[in-house]
Amino acid sequence: MSKQLPIVDAECCSPLVREPLSEPQAAELARVFKAVGDPVRLRLLSLIASHDGGEACVCDLTGAFELTGPTISHHLKVLRESGLITGERRGTWIYYRVQPETLARLSAVLTPAEGSVVTA
Amino acid sequence: MSKQLPIVDAECCSPLVREPLSEPQAAELARVFKAVGDPVRLRLLSLIASHDGGEACVCDLTGAFELTGPTISHHLKVLRESGLITGERRGTWIYYRVQPETLARLSAVLTPAEGSVVTA
Repeated sequence: MSKQLPIVDAECCSPLVREPLSEPQAAELARVFKAVGDPVRLRLLSLIASHDGGEACVCDLTGAFELTGPTISHHLKVLRESGLITGERRGTWIYYRVQPETLARLSAVLTPAEGSVVTA
Repeated sequence: MSKQLPIVDAECCSPLVREPLSEPQAAELARVFKAVGDPVRLRLLSLIASHDGGEACVCDLTGAFELTGPTISHHLKVLRESGLITGERRGTWIYYRVQPETLARLSAVLTPAEGSVVTA
């Protein structure tokens, strides 16, 4: 399986507190946020991201869920198609890794204005 | 209109590259990501966040969309209920502001591992 191209353009986007998103930027980003807007996919992403060596196969993931293999595979596909993870086949298994550039872009867009966060 | 309490617990969550999210954490966060997983809501959020003075009323927002007032109000309600914005009535209008703590938490969860992002 080849690497997925990132969905979110490398130039996208300034923090939304700095300037409004254009319609195409919002459409692109919303698609990726929607992919993480599901509790199973968010847990899958966190299990892959925090796994030893930064990669995990389905065999590492299924134990954490009361879901069938095909359901987990479906969610992994959505994450891949959103550019959040990549998959590489080695032998029997596909090994998944997070795409750090996509995480970084989402994280940057949501960065609040400096000094705006009140800490306890 | 009173301020909304944040949906995402102030303690939530470590970056997902550091440790897996628990089921309740993932459910909580997924709800907020789902709220920004819509192009109209994402643009509304960015218009409010980047507006002069950090606040905007519906009167400032409707011009940017080919949508009816009630549709925009519905999306604003979803953003409010997710703890992403607060609304305060002053005279005729409700003025919306982003909740920087919620943005900061989402942004922190998505922070990639240090040194993992390849820049061009």
